[in-house]
Order: sequence, then structure tokens, then C-alpha cells
Amino acid sequence: MSFSLPERVTLKGPNFIREVFERGVGVDGFISFGIGNPAPEAIPVEIIEKAFDEVVHSNPMSLLQYGPMQGDARLAELTLQRLVKAHHMNPEGQGLIISNGAGQLLGLVPITVIETGDEVYMDEFTFTSAINSVRNMGGKAVGIKTDEYGMIPAELEKAAQSGKGKYIYLIPNFQNPTGITMPLERRKEIYAVASKYDLFIYEDDPYGEIRFAGEYIPTFKSFDTEDRVLYAGSYSKTLSAGLRVGFLFGPAKIIEVIQALKNNTAGQMPLVTQKVVAYVLDTIDYDAHLDNVRKVYKMKCDALLNAFDTYASSKVHLTKPTGGMFAWMTMPESVDCDAFFEACMDKNVGIIKCGAFAADGAGEGHAFRLSYTVPTVEEITKGMEILGALTKEFCGE
Amino acid sequence: MSFSLPERVTLKGPNFIREVFERGVGVDGFISFGIGNPAPEAIPVEIIEKAFDEVVHSNPMSLLQYGPMQGDARLAELTLQRLVKAHHMNPEGQGLIISNGAGQLLGLVPITVIETGDEVYMDEFTFTSAINSVRNMGGKAVGIKTDEYGMIPAELEKAAQSGKGKYIYLIPNFQNPTGITMPLERRKEIYAVASKYDLFIYEDDPYGEIRFAGEYIPTFKSFDTEDRVLYAGSYSKTLSAGLRVGFLFGPAKIIEVIQALKNNTAGQMPLVTQKVVAYVLDTIDYDAHLDNVRKVYKMKCDALLNAFDTYASSKVHLTKPTGGMFAWMTMPESVDCDAFFEACMDKNVGIIKCGAFAADGAGEGHAFRLSYTVPTVEEITKGMEILGALTKEFCGE
Repeated sequence: MSFSLPERVTLKGPNFIREVFERGVGVDGFISFGIGNPAPEAIPVEIIEKAFDEVVHSNPMSLLQYGPMQGDARLAELTLQRLVKAHHMNPEGQGLIISNGAGQLLGLVPITVIETGDEVYMDEFTFTSAINSVRNMGGKAVGIKTDEYGMIPAELEKAAQSGKGKYIYLIPNFQNPTGITMPLERRKEIYAVASKYDLFIYEDDPYGEIRFAGEYIPTFKSFDTEDRVLYAGSYSKTLSAGLRVGFLFGPAKIIEVIQALKNNTAGQMPLVTQKVVAYVLDTIDYDAHLDNVRKVYKMKCDALLNAFDTYASSKVHLTKPTGGMFAWMTMPESVDCDAFFEACMDKNVGIIKCGAFAADGAGEGHAFRLSYTVPTVEEITKGMEILGALTKEFCGE
Repeated sequence: MSFSLPERVTLKGPNFIREVFERGVGVDGFISFGIGNPAPEAIPVEIIEKAFDEVVHSNPMSLLQYGPMQGDARLAELTLQRLVKAHHMNPEGQGLIISNGAGQLLGLVPITVIETGDEVYMDEFTFTSAINSVRNMGGKAVGIKTDEYGMIPAELEKAAQSGKGKYIYLIPNFQNPTGITMPLERRKEIYAVASKYDLFIYEDDPYGEIRFAGEYIPTFKSFDTEDRVLYAGSYSKTLSAGLRVGFLFGPAKIIEVIQALKNNTAGQMPLVTQKVVAYVLDTIDYDAHLDNVRKVYKMKCDALLNAFDTYASSKVHLTKPTGGMFAWMTMPESVDCDAFFEACMDKNVGIIKCGAFAADGAGEGHAFRLSYTVPTVEEITKGMEILGALTKEFCGE
């Protein structure tokens, strides 16, 4: 038989990340700025191994039967405590969902709220799964122009005038893929537009704890006086991505509906991985651990930026991240970016074409995402030397 | 702000299972036939603990970074081998998804295929999450009348004449909640209707390996010559529900689309739990283990049926499961089932009202689900003595 599928699930963007991975895998000396994995040096492996030993053997039967749909209570408690104490969020009238990483939320939110034709506003270049999930649910991912401070409020307002908007998807800290952080002033302007057009804000903050330069900027959620912000966080970048533990914090009324949808459509998550995260949070000095994580990321980012300054053409621009995992390299419009990409691959350096992140699905543009988390400092320096020479070849000194 | 939500996600059925759980929790001497958990005696706890010890310490970094979207390769291989060897399925042109239990598939399938107004045909009483997920996606869950052999083909055909049908959801083995198993003849008749109206079949078989009486009956998938069957299985009932590992096997073309949707909307699953299942399958004699599981379930089911024969009114009917976890008790139409339920609860015996499983959401009927897996044989006997006396009180000898 021919399964008839809704058009919404057949829409596909280009998978440049997978392409770089597959072409680079097993190639001797290949240096990849393409992998969006956290820095391996920052994962507290021994502590997590010990946590498994403790958790698995303390009450195994409770881990091996069906567990609570809401997730592990202690993990929820610790997560909420940190949101309140470290991020000044007001828990009144709010609820929390423990999720299979922040990744599951990228699906759950649109699955819950989207009706066919609804518009979701996002940075013109943003996280691929956020774009695809909205499209898969029959929504329209609308890319909004950005500048060095992130989404431009006037551009957002122009789009919102359609009256079809449902929410704004933002990664305000160390955005994926650009590494840009939105200043407080800009956040307030965006919030005002959301308020004016009665949109909610999906604030995705998986990198927020990894600030290694500049001042802390309050989250949207911390000044959300109108109950219009859903705040998503994750332990993937600070503890371990493989444990798949994230969370969503927001107005209890909507959180309850999303939780019910999660129960029906996804079931519960494994309890063991949640208890491992809770155990780690309960036993280590998390702030001291985060300081170490930040040091690793700063060291690698510095290596990238320094090598770029040393080797790259002055015609090419690179963002200067103050945290997170990514920098964004913009080429002059005259450059053939496909040819530049192939030249990099020929010299065993992997970077991601901006089309992978295009909200409008066009797959075009003159920029690349560089992730500095997985390669070593030596590899970063060597890779940027090669890449820098190529920028001069393609753009001039 | 007021989040505007699609009507589809606000539809709710009665949550009688939770009600019984919440009213019974902490009550001294409460005997629950309400809990749908696997029998604790059948979970190979020590083996799984050992598997964690081995898996966690052999290559921890690979578990703590992002893993493969497709899931653990060895687990997929072992799962496929068993489908081919033990269940005579033909792998040609088929694909396999590893999922967060079979529960995640109850969401993924309708999220992928449903368009507003599509009809999904299912037993008039069936698994709650299957009903809710279809409704949550804007589909119509259409309950089809059943007899002692399961869904009635002529009734299915009547419904399918609407032309709005998308698929048939079935639990052919030891159905939840009725415990009924569909004979091969009936399966072929249902398949013929599916073929005539070009519907696909979602064959949900989480209990299939737990047959403790009667003959093995071929799955729909094993005679699926027209590539119209998606077969869902799970390790939840045979190894551990808490590890959350299930799978979907079906035509590669649709499997690829469901996998892509899973990648976008749910992300990957933890690798550690998948590797634990693979390790257990690789190290134990799985068939011998299943024999032990079946013995436990048979012992408990026998206790239920024997006590029912001894104590219950002859006016009440109980299905005789040949496997799985559930039996279905039907009362005479004259009985006030709400009053009977309350009388049971007053005497500290928990059973689930049929409304919890009503595909049409009506929440009415004259039957109860009894699960015999969690209470001990002594508790089952004692609980049935109490329940049996009440059936005589309400229905006569």
C-alpha cells in the first residue's frame, strides 16, 4: 500500500551537519568545526559513573518498573531551586516538566499549540530541530532578520502584523548557530512586541550556564510579568548530553497541558538517568563544576578567535561569543560559499553551511557555523590556520 | 496572557486508573487489580544491575555524549533477529525504529500520519494512550464493536465505508484491557477489510511474548504481503518497563518518515538504557527467561481465575486470558457499576471501570479491567474473595 502522509511531515531542509559528519568520519587528520557536541573535557565522567553505581544498586526495582509520569521528584525540586536562586525566577503559578533533553521540548511545544498555518517567529538562522518541528506540525517557521544583538524588534513587528503568530522561538544566550547574545534592552523590546501581539515566547536556554565572558543578562522568564514565557533548560551541556535530561518551566496552565500531551504521546522517561542527574547535583558543588566547564569552553573559544585573528582574511567576519559553543563566520557576498565549503573539506576541515539553519528553508546565505567544543586547542589552531589561508585565497588579504 | 490551545489537546477522558491508584496509595491492606505494571517477580533485577555495571564502565564517554539518532545498533540487530527467527517476519524492504518504550510510538504514529478528521478504528475498549494520542492529533478514535474474538470485521467495514479511515489500531494478543486474543482466522478477515479500504494496521504487541496457554498465533505482520502493517513491540513486559525500550518494525518508506519526525520532535534517547537491554539479550538465554516470566504470569492468572470460579456470582463473566496481564469482568446490565466500584473500594479492592478504555470517550459500560500481575497469589485470592462476595451481593448467586 502507499501510506498517504500529510505534506507537513515530508518537508525537509538540507542536512549539512550530517553531510560534514559522514564525509569526515574515519578521515585521518580531519578537523571538524561541525560537531555540536559539548566539550568532552567538561563532562564529569567519573562522577557520573559513581552516580550510576549508587543509583542502580540502591532501589533497583523502583527504576525497573514504570516510574512517575512527572519525572523524578528530587530532580524537579533541585531544578526549580536553581531557577529561583540562580536565575531569579518567580515560581508562583508556574509549573515544571522534566523532559528527554531540551530536544523533546522542541517537539512538544509545537505539537501542543500549533494549528495549521500558525506562524512561529524565529531568528533567520536558528536551531534546525526547532524549525523542522514547527514545519512538521503544519506551522510556518518565519525567519526574522537579526543584527549583532539578535532578532530585530521592528522586523518582528512587521511579521506579527499578519495576525497569524503563535509564538516567538529564541535562544537569547550564545545562540545556535551564531553565538550571539541578546542584550537586556533588546530582550525588553522583543517582550514588548510579544505583549502587543499577544504572542508567547519560547525561551530556549541550553547554553545559558556556560557564560565565560561579559555580564550575566537576565532571562526573559525572570521579567515575565505577563506569564507569556516558557523557559527551556538542559543538563546536556553542563553535565551530559547522553543522559537526555532537560526541563521546561512556565505558566502552570500551559505546562499542565503540555505534560498531559507528553504522557499520552511519549510516555514516561527512564528514571535511572534522571536519578543520576539528581544524585550528581546533590553531591557535587555545581557552581564550582560550572566554573570548570566555563574555563574549558573559554580556552577553546579563545583559541578559535586568536587563530582567526592571526590567519583569516580581514574581509571575513567572525562573531565573538561570550559563552556557549558556536561562532558564526560571515563571508563577503561575492564569495561562492559552496566552493569555499568544498575547498575546506578538501583540506580536511569541516564547517557547517548556514543553509542548515535557515528558518525559511531556503538554504542559502554567506555564512558558516563553527563549533569549537570538540576539537582540542591544537586542532582548533591548526584547523583555523588552514581555514584562514583559504579565506585569503577566496576573499583576498 | 491566555495561551490559545487547539481543541484537540484539551479533550480528556476519565482517569480512573489514577483515581484507583491515588485512593489506594498508603491504605493498609488495599489490594489493587488496577495497576498495569508488569509482575515484579518476573523482572531480572540482578542481571540488569550487572548489565549497568558493565555498560556504564566500559565506554562511559560514548554514553555521555549525544548518541546515534537511530538508537543502539546492536540492540536494533538483536531485535530484528528475533522478529525474523521467533516471529517469522520478512525483513525485506522493512525498517526498525528503537523507541522510548512502545508508549512513544502511540504518539509518533498519529503525529506522523493524522490529518484533522481522519478516523482511526480501534476496539471499543482499548489502551487509553492510544485513544488519547489520536484525539490529541485531531483524529477521530472510532470504537468498533468486539466479540470474544476481538474486533468484528463486519462492524469495521461499516465504519470504514465513511472513507475517512487512516488506520486500524489493534492489540491482537492478550488485549489491554480485555485480555482477548484474536484468532488467526479473524486476523485474516480484518486484514482483508484493511486491504479493501486501503487502511494500514498498527499492530501493538507489547504482551505477545507472554503467552502462557494455548497455541501461538501468527502476527498480522508475519502475513503482511501488502506492506500495510506497522508492528510495535517492547522489552517493558519481558525485561523492564523502567528502561523504556520499545521498537517499531514496518515498511521502510514509512519507518524513515517516522524516524525523521522522531529526530526532529523528540531527539535521541539515552544510550545507556538501550545498551543495558542489548547486554542482557547478549548474555542471558532469553527464551529460558521468557519461560520463567510466563510461569509467573500463569500462576497469577490461574489464581485469579480459580478464585473467580470459587467466589463470584454466576451472573458475572470473566475472560480467560491465555497470556498477558489483564482479564475483563462483565456485569449484568442491571447492575449500577459506579456503586459496585465504590463498594469494592470501600472494602479495599481496586478495579478499573471500563470507561477508562472507551474509544468513543463515553466512559460508560458494564465492565471492569482486572490486572493480576502486581498483587501476590495470596492477595489475588483474598481480593477475589472480597470482590466475589460483592458480585453476589449486587447480582445474586
